[in-house]
Amino acid sequence: MERLIAQPGTGAGGVAEAMAAAAAEIDGVLQNLLPEPSGPERRLAEAMRYAVLAPGKRFRPVLSLATAELFAVPRRSALRVAVAVELAHAYSLVHDDLPCMDDDEMRRGQPTLHKKYDEATAVLAGDALLPLAFEIIAHPETHPDAEVRLELMRALAEAAGPRGMVGGQMIDLLVEHKPADIGTITRMQQLKTGALIAFACEAGAVLGRAPNTARQALRAYARDLGLAFQIVDDLLDVEGSEEATGKRVGKDAGLGKATFVALLGVDRARTQATMLADQALAHLDIFAERAAFLRRLARFVVQRSH
Amino acid sequence: MERLIAQPGTGAGGVAEAMAAAAAEIDGVLQNLLPEPSGPERRLAEAMRYAVLAPGKRFRPVLSLATAELFAVPRRSALRVAVAVELAHAYSLVHDDLPCMDDDEMRRGQPTLHKKYDEATAVLAGDALLPLAFEIIAHPETHPDAEVRLELMRALAEAAGPRGMVGGQMIDLLVEHKPADIGTITRMQQLKTGALIAFACEAGAVLGRAPNTARQALRAYARDLGLAFQIVDDLLDVEGSEEATGKRVGKDAGLGKATFVALLGVDRARTQATMLADQALAHLDIFAERAAFLRRLARFVVQRSH
Repeated sequence: MERLIAQPGTGAGGVAEAMAAAAAEIDGVLQNLLPEPSGPERRLAEAMRYAVLAPGKRFRPVLSLATAELFAVPRRSALRVAVAVELAHAYSLVHDDLPCMDDDEMRRGQPTLHKKYDEATAVLAGDALLPLAFEIIAHPETHPDAEVRLELMRALAEAAGPRGMVGGQMIDLLVEHKPADIGTITRMQQLKTGALIAFACEAGAVLGRAPNTARQALRAYARDLGLAFQIVDDLLDVEGSEEATGKRVGKDAGLGKATFVALLGVDRARTQATMLADQALAHLDIFAERAAFLRRLARFVVQRSH
Repeated sequence: MERLIAQPGTGAGGVAEAMAAAAAEIDGVLQNLLPEPSGPERRLAEAMRYAVLAPGKRFRPVLSLATAELFAVPRRSALRVAVAVELAHAYSLVHDDLPCMDDDEMRRGQPTLHKKYDEATAVLAGDALLPLAFEIIAHPETHPDAEVRLELMRALAEAAGPRGMVGGQMIDLLVEHKPADIGTITRMQQLKTGALIAFACEAGAVLGRAPNTARQALRAYARDLGLAFQIVDDLLDVEGSEEATGKRVGKDAGLGKATFVALLGVDRARTQATMLADQALAHLDIFAERAAFLRRLARFVVQRSH
């Protein structure tokens, strides 16, 4: 059960390998839980599968698996929540890529959904992915206790809603048109990417009915890690290649968009990301050796090239 | 508590009056539960309020209030679920009206959301309304029993997802481009509008922990009523005025779209709607006199002019 905690080695290579193995497990469950194309609406299921099953790091669901391992949550439960997290993430990518939003043509190394299908299908596939995430969590196989499932659904609804992902994307669109300060950018990222990352980490603790101190520690870890992750994303938009990232690069600067890198410069942004990752580690002390993988993951996040 | 059941009179006028009173109650709760505009993302909350608070019949949430009255559910509980139903409905209207979907300019007598704001804001406001519906149901104020709240969330997720509203809208878009038979149109409507109407009716029974026979009767009532409602919608698109309906009329024929009216003709469509309403009534026998309002509502639906 403790496949990530038990993962040997300390280098970035070891983390990448463990993440790839966990991603393969997650993809297997996604395959099973995504609807099969059938009936006159089959195009919808096809589009959902295209968007979700494209190769990805599965960073968020891996966080759920890793935090669930801390509390000896059965793998089957953890995987269902991990998959729900990935569905919510995939939905946000599909909508963020739309022509009326960020107008992106490449994602995860393949044409974005509206390019491959069409805009209407992309809106609908996104619209279908989030309720599917809720359905998966609501099912008794996720956890025998209804209170636990309900708490997960409530937290996911908050992370996905106006005080989470959607609110963050709204700010993101608005800062394209007017200058923004570091406070606005931080709030934007905390809502847009931070809220779901925090949910992904806390979910393991909820499934394991962990004490509040553990939950708060994981939320704090997620908050710092999420910001570090986002700063590195901004850096990769400046310094990365389309080949490595699987999406268009250089677009933020092209839009004159306020990002951490635009506001801080490359060097200070990199320092800030490293500092945030260190800060993330500090929250894990209460888990002692059991959090070794989460520590390595935090370092991996700031060193990643895609 | 039994404001709808106790509503006097039998004519359509009485139903319209009772619905208006219930709609005012629902609107009051919507006002309170929609987020207040604040922070850099305030535009999102403004857009959500614009879309949801526009005057509407509140047909779906009234169904939730009326079915909840059958089982003596506290008004406060019933209103929270009714509001969640209306949010889910408003979200679907905002997305269906988008340029890449039905490309509508008027809704509920005012410019559609993407016309008033912009397309990106309309996508996001829609995206924010559904999670808000889930948050409202998940809150303990909706019902003291977590199992009940969870069951409502699970049913709403199903009604909103690929085997519900979104699947139906996918079929709707596809039948614009190729001929469809009555079976396809029926399936489209059962998913697109029927699933949420069924949820709205069943929700009262779930809140009241009604026996399965009662739940099944209400689902059957909802299924027939939902189709009758939709056929009348199609008829109003042919025979109604923009002034009365608050939206563009004649658009289905303009698109050469397969609808009940296109396939059956006006007269047979009207007969079919009346027959479905009668069929809906038959399912209410087990509730005897207590279902008088639901019966009047079914008749009202087929006689309505908007």
